[in-house]
Amino acid sequence: MTDLVELAKRRGFFFQSSEAYGGVSGFYTYGPQGASLKEHVEETWRERFAVAEGHMQIDAPTVMPEPVFEASGHLDGFDDMLVECASCNESHRADHLIEGATDIEEAESLPTDEVAALLDAHDIDCPTCGAPLAGQPVDEFNLMFETNIGPGTSQTGYLRPETAQGIFVEFPRLKEYARGQLPFGVTQVGKSYRNEISPRNALVRTREFTQAELELFVDPDDEGPDVSAVADVEVTLYPAENQPDGDYVETTVGDAVTEGIVDPWVAYYLGVATEWYETIGVDFERFRYRQHQPGERAHYASDCWDAEADVSAAGEEPDWIEIAGYAYRGDYDLTKHDEHADDTFTVFKQYDEPKTVERASVDPDMSYLGPEFGGAAADVADALATLAERDRAAFEDEEVTVTVDGEEYTVPTEKTGFEFAEETEAGRHVTPHVVEPSIGIDRTVYTVLAHAYDEDEVDEGERTVLRLDTSVAPTGVAVFPLMDKDGMGERARDIAADLRAAGYDVTYDDSGNIGRRYRRQDEIGTPFCVTVDYESVEDDPETVTLRERDSTEQVRVASDDLESILADLRAGETTFDDL
Amino acid sequence: MTDLVELAKRRGFFFQSSEAYGGVSGFYTYGPQGASLKEHVEETWRERFAVAEGHMQIDAPTVMPEPVFEASGHLDGFDDMLVECASCNESHRADHLIEGATDIEEAESLPTDEVAALLDAHDIDCPTCGAPLAGQPVDEFNLMFETNIGPGTSQTGYLRPETAQGIFVEFPRLKEYARGQLPFGVTQVGKSYRNEISPRNALVRTREFTQAELELFVDPDDEGPDVSAVADVEVTLYPAENQPDGDYVETTVGDAVTEGIVDPWVAYYLGVATEWYETIGVDFERFRYRQHQPGERAHYASDCWDAEADVSAAGEEPDWIEIAGYAYRGDYDLTKHDEHADDTFTVFKQYDEPKTVERASVDPDMSYLGPEFGGAAADVADALATLAERDRAAFEDEEVTVTVDGEEYTVPTEKTGFEFAEETEAGRHVTPHVVEPSIGIDRTVYTVLAHAYDEDEVDEGERTVLRLDTSVAPTGVAVFPLMDKDGMGERARDIAADLRAAGYDVTYDDSGNIGRRYRRQDEIGTPFCVTVDYESVEDDPETVTLRERDSTEQVRVASDDLESILADLRAGETTFDDL
Repeated sequence: MTDLVELAKRRGFFFQSSEAYGGVSGFYTYGPQGASLKEHVEETWRERFAVAEGHMQIDAPTVMPEPVFEASGHLDGFDDMLVECASCNESHRADHLIEGATDIEEAESLPTDEVAALLDAHDIDCPTCGAPLAGQPVDEFNLMFETNIGPGTSQTGYLRPETAQGIFVEFPRLKEYARGQLPFGVTQVGKSYRNEISPRNALVRTREFTQAELELFVDPDDEGPDVSAVADVEVTLYPAENQPDGDYVETTVGDAVTEGIVDPWVAYYLGVATEWYETIGVDFERFRYRQHQPGERAHYASDCWDAEADVSAAGEEPDWIEIAGYAYRGDYDLTKHDEHADDTFTVFKQYDEPKTVERASVDPDMSYLGPEFGGAAADVADALATLAERDRAAFEDEEVTVTVDGEEYTVPTEKTGFEFAEETEAGRHVTPHVVEPSIGIDRTVYTVLAHAYDEDEVDEGERTVLRLDTSVAPTGVAVFPLMDKDGMGERARDIAADLRAAGYDVTYDDSGNIGRRYRRQDEIGTPFCVTVDYESVEDDPETVTLRERDSTEQVRVASDDLESILADLRAGETTFDDL
Repeated sequence: MTDLVELAKRRGFFFQSSEAYGGVSGFYTYGPQGASLKEHVEETWRERFAVAEGHMQIDAPTVMPEPVFEASGHLDGFDDMLVECASCNESHRADHLIEGATDIEEAESLPTDEVAALLDAHDIDCPTCGAPLAGQPVDEFNLMFETNIGPGTSQTGYLRPETAQGIFVEFPRLKEYARGQLPFGVTQVGKSYRNEISPRNALVRTREFTQAELELFVDPDDEGPDVSAVADVEVTLYPAENQPDGDYVETTVGDAVTEGIVDPWVAYYLGVATEWYETIGVDFERFRYRQHQPGERAHYASDCWDAEADVSAAGEEPDWIEIAGYAYRGDYDLTKHDEHADDTFTVFKQYDEPKTVERASVDPDMSYLGPEFGGAAADVADALATLAERDRAAFEDEEVTVTVDGEEYTVPTEKTGFEFAEETEAGRHVTPHVVEPSIGIDRTVYTVLAHAYDEDEVDEGERTVLRLDTSVAPTGVAVFPLMDKDGMGERARDIAADLRAAGYDVTYDDSGNIGRRYRRQDEIGTPFCVTVDYESVEDDPETVTLRERDSTEQVRVASDDLESILADLRAGETTFDDL
């Protein structure tokens, strides 16, 4: 991991921001290579999850007003457990300290006073200065960044902790764009913010990060998805019940659904996701879908599977990180916003034909119930209403008996105002359930880099190489003149310009010896290099050397064929050995 | 403008965010059409300003620590003038009120007490409630959003007010990626934030917005740019000195440089920008480059030209808005960061050959100067040092005379420790100057919409149409079956899938009558619609109707030719009349 982070800095993938001012934990800047890699990862995500699936894309602000997070539950519940060292004032996540020092997993789910007691009981010291933390209070620390909107009597705003809320709050309008038809999906790629207590591991736990989220709104009473398009996709599953034994289930999406291992909607998106992870070069030997333990799930999720990747370096202990969550969020989000907001978060579903429904109601005579039952009268009236809905046969006799707080009350039926009527209903109001693939783009970028990172021995000696897939490599092809003289520089620049016009990300480089230039391109993962040498300018028709990154093999090809050869290599229609 | 904003909301271009919670001024969400349009605008910008120019792209955090903005000057100077109404507590920009009520332009440049006095003198009332503002204080209100980073003893952070600072603070690393070669350019597209006192006009003045910025670092002693690539580009200039008379200068980039109207680097980017504006469909009849008046320029800019667009609706008064600034920022930014930060913001430029320089120095004998000149001794020593650098001939005589605070002091040359030596210099440290094209993406999107908006009369009646360029239209082509029956739906869905695979943004629509579906596509600016009707499924080979948005004309073409015809139309190699 250290080697990768060092390479990332040296070659312009990513580095800690504002280091000239001492840096700030948890903020990273993508340099030229990293910005390009990240852009490619986002583009391929959009292609697969938005365009190919026919879902909408939106782009909402990152600053949102307080009432949104009152409704979503983030204001009250989006906390981590904070303990501060009395000696050095450093802040730590108390639950992480407990997990590190004991066998306890998911300390996050314990109450704060219990965690404080555990810090005492296990004599846990400050990881920074070594002073004992025993006796220090453990507090809930809200992870949202707060700010003020506008001058004077300003409003409180927060940087959104997930892109999802930008979609949920606009549901009333988005459903109009979808013309009220369920299911429909809305995607967003954008920044989210969490004021982490202890940011760490480079891009893995940062305070500002990019998410790609899809919120699919479904009617829970509709049939599930047609998973046939991804039924044969192979997946490595790690169900909650298998985790104590460490057994994976190697299966297909189709079988996982048939066998009831995964919710069908979640399974469908695991299939879509697996196809995408393959495109961007994730190594499936170091990848799994892990189901959340019941105690581990977010308050809103009824089922959730995390995509996890092992990002350890060769020879190190496995280091599994969560890179995405695929959750069935139920109706939690829209129900909450429907309660809090001044708009309707349901969809009216028209029946194919209007339905006749029978409806029973009561209108109790309170001037009788009041004197008769005193303080219990209102409760009796409620019980009668409930009974009418559930069992109208009970109102066929002359008296009706209901139970309130274990006590029976008998009422003459004529005093209940019971009525029974047939009504015509054109449809029903549905609160859609939400299926949510939520991808951490930065962690995915980090995984792609970790899985591409390699060190090997080639003719020229040891080298570091990023075996990035052509779909995400920052540079598609590098073009070099052997030296910038005798016409070689001009020709190389012309070839670079032609390839650029054909849509390739091209780097032109004429500095240093050729071996060093190859090394540089290997380190940033450029799949192919083209070199213009003396033979090139003498040959008629002109030829160039084409070098493959992974094998370091070279072939001589006609310049005129370069574009079509690269296109074939990229599309996988040709291998380098064929040339 | 009202019509456009209404259309934008109804058709999913943009709308005020969080309206279900009452909304917050200055925050807008892009719906599905708008997000796509915005993405296309950003992509074409990247193509033209980053890829084609060979500049780097980076992606930096939006939250930055306080010391960055102490250095950049934003903490002290990034203010607007705030006056609050004592009666209704509403906040207003005092300078805007003055400009609206008097002939004064650029009230922003006046001191706050003078602005307060003008509010009194002109009896200006609160625009919200009508109460007099006389006597109310005018304050400087800093426009940055503030937040706290980390728990406990947290750091103050700000949401960046411009993407540029994310580039400047990383200059020490970026110059390494550029291998110390000037000029080099770094681009960034991302969010910026300004806590505006009075957000207004939809996307025009928001509190969260997207910028596309290029920072080009140049050596001011180098030759200027080669403008030949854009020399023939025609531009409408509005130089500062012409503005009192309202006269534009219609010229080319090449002539503007030759005649000294525009700084060559700025002119080069006006050329690049004009090509880009043409690509995205800006109407040059409603467009100009306006030079800042000397008093209007930012503290750092030595010259600046704004791109301005008239976004008024047909028949309204012109409404010019600033959509970009093209500035020569000089060495202000890097000098400031060099002073404040713990790193070097200069570039070492090696000479082609080492240069021999002559260097004169003094080392005055203070045991002589002290007793001789008392309190003035140190100043005399400084004056000797300055004199040695400027005029070493002065040290050829036995005595040297310097002037301090109007008084002459004479020192024996032997007591000055004068020395003269030749030194070899390998190069020099250069603080690069910055040329900055800074584009407001949201305002550009708004301009593209305003210039594309049209209402006309066609056979089917009155319609609203967005005449968007194919390069930015959210949907490239819409595909309809006449009805979803008799095989027409299947064929239309197949054609849609084929076109999608060929890289088009395709919408499939089978709801409502055909006329209504055309209207819907006209309103979102879809250039072409394809309809599968009964004739289609009967013809062999199959044919479809292709309809052009602007003319509403229709032709019947073979399905198999559709892809190549659309490609030719898009590339401008065919017109619809040719078909």
